[in-house]
Amino acid sequence: MRAAIREKHDGGFADRRTVRLWLRLLSCATVVEKRLKRRFGDHFGSTLPRFDVLAQLERAPEGMTMSALSAALLVSNGNVTGVVQVLARDGLVTLAPSPTDGRVAIVRLTEAGRRQFERQAEAHHRWVDAMLADLTPGEMEQLYALLGRVKQSIAADRSEEQP
Amino acid sequence: MRAAIREKHDGGFADRRTVRLWLRLLSCATVVEKRLKRRFGDHFGSTLPRFDVLAQLERAPEGMTMSALSAALLVSNGNVTGVVQVLARDGLVTLAPSPTDGRVAIVRLTEAGRRQFERQAEAHHRWVDAMLADLTPGEMEQLYALLGRVKQSIAADRSEEQP
Repeated sequence: MRAAIREKHDGGFADRRTVRLWLRLLSCATVVEKRLKRRFGDHFGSTLPRFDVLAQLERAPEGMTMSALSAALLVSNGNVTGVVQVLARDGLVTLAPSPTDGRVAIVRLTEAGRRQFERQAEAHHRWVDAMLADLTPGEMEQLYALLGRVKQSIAADRSEEQP
Repeated sequence: MRAAIREKHDGGFADRRTVRLWLRLLSCATVVEKRLKRRFGDHFGSTLPRFDVLAQLERAPEGMTMSALSAALLVSNGNVTGVVQVLARDGLVTLAPSPTDGRVAIVRLTEAGRRQFERQAEAHHRWVDAMLADLTPGEMEQLYALLGRVKQSIAADRSEEQP
């Protein structure tokens, strides 16, 4: 969707260094994510949000409440609820009332869910490896460090307060 | 949404260098895009997709067909149609039948649309600048070049054909 702006700024405004950088970063992320999304669909009949929920639950053997899951995933409760319902229908997670508060549901990975997560994590790793295969270990390290600088810079940005 | 996987791989699998790198790249893109999205809403009552359509049209004074617009933006025709309808309602674009084929509509930026695009592009530039403000010019250049390597590597990936 951002192709128009990329073109524009890559071409017309050579001085807009930050915008060019941002649009290249966005374009890389978009292409990789789109490709992963398609492959999750083709190979597993699944989606990245479902994979993310499985990944989160895999780290919580005791299970998680829907709201803890939602907070961990940074998406709205509504979205997580829908994703969890599909996973439950497919037998990959179970929902049980919390022993301390019967109104709260605890989501847990089933054994089938764990196996499915492992298959998907392995494929995810392999696909990402293949997409980044041309980078040398040194380039990867450099890029990782520079993206760390971007994270810091974003966190320090206070322009929100000055419209 | 990918927070779970990031945590997991950042922690548990130090050897999964490519996955850690990918998830950090995705996380940077997601945070910046989310922030830009919120600001477009707060400051302009608008969206990034609408901004993208304006940006595309700003480069095509002669106007564009809906399908050319859709192709340029890499989104489905359906989405672009909805975005264009909102922009037309707001007086930022016009739709007129093509002189060569009356069944095809040509979308053009209005003068108000051009002014609105310029205001938004200026703000977009300012916000991106602020988010990347901590990076030195050298770091930005390095990052831009490394992301260029990522683009090349993604383009060379043929793992699609070997499931």
